[in-house]
Amino acid sequence: MISKEQISADYQQIQDEICAALELTDSKARFEEEKWERDGGGGGRTRIIQNGNIFEKGGVNFSAVHGQLPENMKTALQVKEDDFFATGVSIVIHPNHPMVPIIHMNIRYFEMPSSFGNGHQPLRWFGGGIDLTPHYIIDADAQHFHSSVKAVCDAYHHDFYHRFKLWADDYFYIKHRNETRGIGGIFYDRLTANDELSWDTIFEFSKALGRSFIPVYTELVERNRHASFTEEQQLWQYQRRSRYTEFNLVYDAGTKFGLETNGRIESILMSLPPTAKWLYNYQATPGSEEERTLSLLKKGINWA
Amino acid sequence: MISKEQISADYQQIQDEICAALELTDSKARFEEEKWERDGGGGGRTRIIQNGNIFEKGGVNFSAVHGQLPENMKTALQVKEDDFFATGVSIVIHPNHPMVPIIHMNIRYFEMPSSFGNGHQPLRWFGGGIDLTPHYIIDADAQHFHSSVKAVCDAYHHDFYHRFKLWADDYFYIKHRNETRGIGGIFYDRLTANDELSWDTIFEFSKALGRSFIPVYTELVERNRHASFTEEQQLWQYQRRSRYTEFNLVYDAGTKFGLETNGRIESILMSLPPTAKWLYNYQATPGSEEERTLSLLKKGINWA
Repeated sequence: MISKEQISADYQQIQDEICAALELTDSKARFEEEKWERDGGGGGRTRIIQNGNIFEKGGVNFSAVHGQLPENMKTALQVKEDDFFATGVSIVIHPNHPMVPIIHMNIRYFEMPSSFGNGHQPLRWFGGGIDLTPHYIIDADAQHFHSSVKAVCDAYHHDFYHRFKLWADDYFYIKHRNETRGIGGIFYDRLTANDELSWDTIFEFSKALGRSFIPVYTELVERNRHASFTEEQQLWQYQRRSRYTEFNLVYDAGTKFGLETNGRIESILMSLPPTAKWLYNYQATPGSEEERTLSLLKKGINWA
Repeated sequence: MISKEQISADYQQIQDEICAALELTDSKARFEEEKWERDGGGGGRTRIIQNGNIFEKGGVNFSAVHGQLPENMKTALQVKEDDFFATGVSIVIHPNHPMVPIIHMNIRYFEMPSSFGNGHQPLRWFGGGIDLTPHYIIDADAQHFHSSVKAVCDAYHHDFYHRFKLWADDYFYIKHRNETRGIGGIFYDRLTANDELSWDTIFEFSKALGRSFIPVYTELVERNRHASFTEEQQLWQYQRRSRYTEFNLVYDAGTKFGLETNGRIESILMSLPPTAKWLYNYQATPGSEEERTLSLLKKGINWA
C-alpha cells in the first residue's frame, strides 16, 4: 500500500500542475498562496486567483491535516478511534464570463492509522469528484465534459462512471429548489480496495481524475471565452451563483464539516462567488435559453 | 384569552400599516403582493418591494397556516399532538444605501388546539424580535435603536429588554466568523402567560413591537438617506450582506424550518440580499470605519 506521505506529495504535485496551467490560460492573474498550520496538526496551501482575464475568483487548495477527531465527527463517520490523517486537493472556479461554466473538483484521502480493517490494514479510503455548473447549458459542452470524465473512469473500472455519476446527481442537488446544482459529473466517497480493485488502482484513478481537470476545463474555457454576452446574461450568471451559494451553505458536506469543526474559514468559503444576486421570484421567459437551462437541471440526464 | 382569529386579524392590520408607511418613506417603489395557499391548510400574503429610492429589496410577509405538524417538527418542538396553527409577520429590508441599516422584525403566535397545558388552555406561545444590521455602525443610531426597543419592552415588563436582548445576542451570532450579525436587538420565543404576566399583556407587547417598527426604522432611514457614499463603501455593504446570507442559510431557525418542511421558498428566501459579494480574505484597513464596525460586532455591548 502507498504511504500517506506519497499520496500527500503527489497531491501537492497535482496542485502545482493545475495552478501553473490555469495561470497560463488566464494570462493575467496569478495565484496568491497562503500557507497555514492547523492547531491540532498539519496544515495546507491555499491558493487563490482573483480578477483575471477569465477567472474572477478561484481557489486551488491543498491540505494535509492530522490529529484527533472531534466527537461529533466520530459520530458522523461512525468510527471509534480518533486519530486521523486527511489530505486532498479542492478546486472551485468562478469565471467572469457567463458562457464559461463554474467548475469544482476534489480528490481526497483519509485514514485512521490505529483503526484496523480488512487484512490488518489501517482503516482508509479515497473520495473525490468533479462536477460542472454552466450558467447556460450548452449541449456539446455538457457532452464533452461527461465523455471526458467517463473516459477517465473507464480506464480504471467499467463500473466507476455509472456508479459515480448517479452519486453526483444525488449529491449535487438543491432540494428546496428541486434542481441540481449543475449538470453533475462524478462523486464518490469511502472507496476502498476489494478482490477486484486494488489500492494502487484507486490511487492511480484519484491522480488521473486530478490530472484530467486541466484538459477538460481548458477546453470548455477556450470554446466559450470569446463569445459576446449581454448585461442580462451576466445578471443571469449572478443569479445562478446564488443557487451555488445556497447549495454550498445548506447542503455541502465538506462545507458543513469545516464550519462545525472550526476549519480555516477563508479556505472553506473560498467556494462562494465574488458576486451573487437574489432577485425575488425570478421567472425565466418562456422559450428562453434561461428556461432551457432550468429545464435541464435535473437528475438522470445521460450526457455521455 | 384572545382568539387566534383576532391575533391573525391584528397581525394583518400591522402588515398593512407597515407597508403603507414604507411606501411613503420610499416614495417610488410599491409593494407587490402575492397571495398563496398552503397545501396542508392556510396561506399568506407575501409583499415585496424592490428597486426603490431607498429600499433595494424588502419583504413584509404575513402568514396564517394550520394543519398537521410533520414528524421532524414534532421532535424539534418536543410536542406530541400534531395539529397546529401559526401566524406571524416577518420583515427583512435591504436598503440600497450603505449608511442605512438592514433591519429584521418578526412577531408570531403558535398554538396546538388539542394539546392542553396549564389551566386547561391549549398549548400556545408568542415569539418575535427585532434586530438591526448596520453596514457601518453609527453609535448614535445604535443607541437610538436599542433605547426605542427598550422603551417598548419596559412598557410591558421590567425584565423583557434585559432577557430578550441577551437572547438576541446569542441568536443572531455567526459562529464560524465569531461575529454577531449586527448590533442585535431583542429575540424571544415560547413566551407564555404566568402568575405575573397575562396573555393580554403578551399579545399587547407583540402588537406594540410590530407597531414600533415604522417609527424606529423611519428615523434611521431619514438620518442617513442623504449622506454621500463612495464605491468602496458600497463594496463593503455588499460584503456585509454576504455575512447576512451566511447567517440566514446556515443558522436561522426559521429559514431552516422553512426549507426542511417544504415551505414557500420565495417567501422564506426573500430575506436574501439583492447583491452580495464574497471577497477572499478581506482585511479591514487598521483604523478604518470598516475595522471599527467589525470590532463592535460582539455580544454583550450595552447600547441602550
